[in-house]
Amino acid sequence: MNKLLIVGTVAFDAIETPFGKTDKILGGAGTYIGLSASFFNVQSAIVSVVGDDFPQEYLDLLTSRNIDISGLEVVKGGKTFFWSGRYHNDLNSRDTLDTQLNVLADFQPRVPQEYKNADIVMLGNLHPLVQSSVLDQMTTQPKLVVLDTMNFWMDCALPELLEVIKRVDVITINDEEARQLSGEYSLVKAAAKIQMMGPKYVVIKKGEHGALLFHDKEVFFAPALPLEEVFDPTGAGDTFAGGFAGYITQSENISFENMKNAIIQGSNLASFCVEKFGTQRMIELDKSEVLSRLKQFKSLTQFDIEL
Amino acid sequence: MNKLLIVGTVAFDAIETPFGKTDKILGGAGTYIGLSASFFNVQSAIVSVVGDDFPQEYLDLLTSRNIDISGLEVVKGGKTFFWSGRYHNDLNSRDTLDTQLNVLADFQPRVPQEYKNADIVMLGNLHPLVQSSVLDQMTTQPKLVVLDTMNFWMDCALPELLEVIKRVDVITINDEEARQLSGEYSLVKAAAKIQMMGPKYVVIKKGEHGALLFHDKEVFFAPALPLEEVFDPTGAGDTFAGGFAGYITQSENISFENMKNAIIQGSNLASFCVEKFGTQRMIELDKSEVLSRLKQFKSLTQFDIEL
Repeated sequence: MNKLLIVGTVAFDAIETPFGKTDKILGGAGTYIGLSASFFNVQSAIVSVVGDDFPQEYLDLLTSRNIDISGLEVVKGGKTFFWSGRYHNDLNSRDTLDTQLNVLADFQPRVPQEYKNADIVMLGNLHPLVQSSVLDQMTTQPKLVVLDTMNFWMDCALPELLEVIKRVDVITINDEEARQLSGEYSLVKAAAKIQMMGPKYVVIKKGEHGALLFHDKEVFFAPALPLEEVFDPTGAGDTFAGGFAGYITQSENISFENMKNAIIQGSNLASFCVEKFGTQRMIELDKSEVLSRLKQFKSLTQFDIEL
Repeated sequence: MNKLLIVGTVAFDAIETPFGKTDKILGGAGTYIGLSASFFNVQSAIVSVVGDDFPQEYLDLLTSRNIDISGLEVVKGGKTFFWSGRYHNDLNSRDTLDTQLNVLADFQPRVPQEYKNADIVMLGNLHPLVQSSVLDQMTTQPKLVVLDTMNFWMDCALPELLEVIKRVDVITINDEEARQLSGEYSLVKAAAKIQMMGPKYVVIKKGEHGALLFHDKEVFFAPALPLEEVFDPTGAGDTFAGGFAGYITQSENISFENMKNAIIQGSNLASFCVEKFGTQRMIELDKSEVLSRLKQFKSLTQFDIEL
């Protein structure tokens, strides 16, 4: 079984949407990526940090998904990273109400010995220096390094972000962030510029409007599944990235053609994530539902014009 | 050859985009629909009205595309409908600067005798009573009636709009208009409600984010082709509708499966329309370019996951 190394936050989230609000619940990019990747036949590990306020049941949940948590540091007397946000009525934008870095402020990632030769590395959204440090610890060159990031790091740590971006094969980023990073409004031009920064593959996530994969002159588009209701978008981007990385790891195929499939797998898993608050839907989800919705994706986009 | 009857404005437009501005140029929903449908092997006619200020060269352009203009009334001493608008920087929204109805104010459509048994009817954006009047004049039931409309008629002539909507098979409408017409934010719910108003097929146009086709529980999605630059979005929706109707007319197949192809054909033609001001790109366009880009559409969306 191939190995997938995941770095990303493991956190508490408090979320408000037009449909309700939650107290502190399980969240974090690493959590969503790990849960999503667990739908594939892979060995995975999360490198992250929590405080000792982090419940054992959440740790048990991760291990029950065959996620190695030996690289998930628990800081004695520390408090877990906390984020709180409120979504606007259209669910396409949100306000951050509170961010408490807590143990994340001094986080020094430690890659478990057994994962220093991981096949695929998924660098979830975190400080670019943490992402770089994980790559520094690898003893063999991964077959593929995927990086997810956000506008926050472009604002606060752009030089460090540009350094780590140079070292990755795939970047996943949303449309506004792609525009910010490249200075180009056109996503086609933005993707071309970002490819010149390092990543040969650029995935632009457009939320309810799907995702684009760019590589050289090639482009592939995966729609988001049209849903009756989006309940909570939190974690959708991370779930997408986790599905992408999980599928690539399982299939051992890093061709552009197979990345198309990986994008579809990521979009498929993300379509479940948004149906309930936080990680709830991903926890309940079973593989037969995933397969059934994958068929919907196929009929959603496949056509048969004679050319 | 099958017959396509088109109703829609034939007009002057003056357009400002971030890339420049035009004086009065050829425009109007009927014009764009007619030009777009002319890429298919169909007999078509436009029912519309202009003033005698409308240049002969524009009339000649339409006839050179094998469009029958015997139903295009020229009002002696009348002035042609004029619209002027300015697009915002993102090209996704625009302000109307001027609208002069002129000859359109008293327009009574007259369907040419030869087209009263048209196979397909494309009701372009116009007053719903004009759209109804065209249907009233048909001597045989068309195989398919497609209607395009806009928020303006929802605001000013909703009862008349709802009457004509009852009588059509397909409605094409943008996302905001679908929300306004249905009172539902979710496009899935909006499409379901609009289907209950009459049209068995609902096409929701999302501009740069593609188009959705809904029918019963089925849904199909066609992306917009990612372009380096959108120059002028004017007429893109009408070009889409014209490509849709033209392809359906040519293929004589009104199944859901074939409508998928029609949506792709419409999206393909619309991707050209936005590359230059007004109708310019559609006038220069040749069939080999259309075919070549159709192949791009296929590689843009087709994937091969084993299920």
